[in-house]
Amino acid sequence: MVSVAIMGHGVVGSGVAEILTTHKKKLFAGLGEEIYIKKILDLREFPDSPLADRFTKDFNDILNDREIRVVAEVMGGVNPAYDFVKKCLKSGKSVVTSNKELVAAKGAELLEIAKENNVNFLFEASVGGGIPIIRPMSQCLVANNVDEVAGILNGTTNFILTKMIADGMQFDDALKLAQDLGFAERNPAADIEGHDACRKICILASLAYGKHVYPDAVHTEGITKITLEDVKYAEAFGCVIKLIGKVKKLEDGKIDILVAPMLVPNESQLANIDYEFNGIMVRGDCTGDVVFYGKGAGKLPTASAVVADIVDCCKHLKTRKYLYWTDGDGKNILPAEQSVSAMYVRANGTDVISKAENIFGSVSVIERADADDTAFVTSEITYGEFNEKIASLANDGVEVLSTIRIGDL
Amino acid sequence: MVSVAIMGHGVVGSGVAEILTTHKKKLFAGLGEEIYIKKILDLREFPDSPLADRFTKDFNDILNDREIRVVAEVMGGVNPAYDFVKKCLKSGKSVVTSNKELVAAKGAELLEIAKENNVNFLFEASVGGGIPIIRPMSQCLVANNVDEVAGILNGTTNFILTKMIADGMQFDDALKLAQDLGFAERNPAADIEGHDACRKICILASLAYGKHVYPDAVHTEGITKITLEDVKYAEAFGCVIKLIGKVKKLEDGKIDILVAPMLVPNESQLANIDYEFNGIMVRGDCTGDVVFYGKGAGKLPTASAVVADIVDCCKHLKTRKYLYWTDGDGKNILPAEQSVSAMYVRANGTDVISKAENIFGSVSVIERADADDTAFVTSEITYGEFNEKIASLANDGVEVLSTIRIGDL
Repeated sequence: MVSVAIMGHGVVGSGVAEILTTHKKKLFAGLGEEIYIKKILDLREFPDSPLADRFTKDFNDILNDREIRVVAEVMGGVNPAYDFVKKCLKSGKSVVTSNKELVAAKGAELLEIAKENNVNFLFEASVGGGIPIIRPMSQCLVANNVDEVAGILNGTTNFILTKMIADGMQFDDALKLAQDLGFAERNPAADIEGHDACRKICILASLAYGKHVYPDAVHTEGITKITLEDVKYAEAFGCVIKLIGKVKKLEDGKIDILVAPMLVPNESQLANIDYEFNGIMVRGDCTGDVVFYGKGAGKLPTASAVVADIVDCCKHLKTRKYLYWTDGDGKNILPAEQSVSAMYVRANGTDVISKAENIFGSVSVIERADADDTAFVTSEITYGEFNEKIASLANDGVEVLSTIRIGDL
Repeated sequence: MVSVAIMGHGVVGSGVAEILTTHKKKLFAGLGEEIYIKKILDLREFPDSPLADRFTKDFNDILNDREIRVVAEVMGGVNPAYDFVKKCLKSGKSVVTSNKELVAAKGAELLEIAKENNVNFLFEASVGGGIPIIRPMSQCLVANNVDEVAGILNGTTNFILTKMIADGMQFDDALKLAQDLGFAERNPAADIEGHDACRKICILASLAYGKHVYPDAVHTEGITKITLEDVKYAEAFGCVIKLIGKVKKLEDGKIDILVAPMLVPNESQLANIDYEFNGIMVRGDCTGDVVFYGKGAGKLPTASAVVADIVDCCKHLKTRKYLYWTDGDGKNILPAEQSVSAMYVRANGTDVISKAENIFGSVSVIERADADDTAFVTSEITYGEFNEKIASLANDGVEVLSTIRIGDL
């Protein structure tokens, strides 16, 4: 029997307790031992829970219990999770977490502490919910150099964009629907501004390239400026608009990383990933493109990934899994203005295309029968140069309504 | 340093040697030790290989070398691979293999021998080539009961079907093109008759449900009878034809397993998996649908999965990975005639639909402007009853041209 503790009894935490209870037999078969929930940390009362006798409001009840070997942190947020996780690792307990904010902010430090204390720190659930991605990347793809990782990493924004594309719904209405269905938080900023996707691509980039990438070093755009006009132009160009988190290894060893809405060609495997689903493409030098698809959030999908990590920790109480990266200073990150992409531009005014061609050289005009304004796509250009040229276009009397990257996916 | 041996220097075997050489630095970082290729078994001569001094034609040079801890079997075929693998496991060496025929025929026995000898027997590369699927299913999805696994498991047939669908190419021409491009063997029977896909779904079913499923217990149909007429009717019905390997857990604990071409609705995640790519959907009770996509074959994708298993064995020289199933007697397999599906029927004759409705009850007629014959879709029906009714339809003077399952995917 291995004793474990769960810190947090919210959506994911209660799911972890539920799966450990309902799937006891299968887990026993997989592990050869029983997993016993000895403590659950939450400040709230759960008198009607079948596990009511295990609840505590005092973290020290977990920290000081030497029988507890594995702790699941499913509270969310950096504080106090960071302090609790650090103390657990230092006291020789393995920790698993679904907390992407914590891993993106403190991953390198916590991995180092885990290593020093010969315990494991696992976080399969922090990216892609129930989709296996951290373990496949660190184990199955170990014999590959990862050339690129690109994904639809946030289900809320993907739901909103899908509703705009499939049903012609306005952004605000689609957001409200997502909130009503429970896909979006009442305060949706972390999702719609791209911060959640940013944390996830930071974790994947750290894993792929071995150095921690901090979210504040990553150019991040959300989807709040995307309009139905853009969606229709994208369609006319054979694309759908998706919020993409992407990191690519460059020839000089630097990484080009960003989160932004992109026009994704219909033929791309990421174009067909709709509604609240996530999809992650990993391009290895040996495997070519491998894509992982599934529900990126939700109580049981996420909790099942946490439980898989608990099982893995229970199996490896005395040996360390290899999952590690060092701290990063950001010097390996290409400045956003040097990142290269073809760009979609929607604009209003007279002679937009001839003015655009004067500034950008040849552009591809997107024809649309029912359009009031004009849209074109530039050839590949650095983001810095693009912004300078867009300023020139505006100086020429053109009203630039929106600009979106073309995803080379 | 861990010494390993490679048995077989064909396409996959030479890829394994290549990756172990070219990715030495990355593998060292992942493992913390060097992997040294001590012996390569092949009956042919490779005087120009940089590893020429490691080749042997005598299996005993590997078996009797106590320094060799891990052996990669990449010869293919059951004999002599089976004998060699058994002897290696019994002498305390871990074995990894890409050989789906071997795993499908002898998996339970070899897993048992590995367990008795406290070594590992891993076979990530046997299904889906470079796509991580065995490890995600056995580890990441450990906290799920697997309700269903369905996949496009054979790249050759998927290439042929895609060419028929996308370019209107005849089956024979598409097969020849696949052969010219190296996707299909000169003797393509194992692919186009469905046997290769059958071995793979047997491996996945054994893994998902814990009892070995032997290929000869599985109803298997290939794609040789699929015509362009069927492809066009499928399109008119909002579907594409794919060769699907599928296993589903039924309420009585039995499994419904088969390999057959199916009409897959365009909205299914499996519908967009084209050309030589593979895609595998795993439906867990907690995760919902998770899909894995990538190249299912080829030298480097497959070899990189073999190398990942080698690394895993090197990491676990003293501990066993949990990857195990027991032998199966086939009693948990639903007889094919009891398997339920809606069925597509293409037929010729007078009053086909009224005769069909007399026999099947209400059917959905597929309308197609340029068609010479008639096609309809039945409601769900057991395969046994369907065949009886098709015989009645033939007795009524209807020429039945083809019958294909509707994939509920």
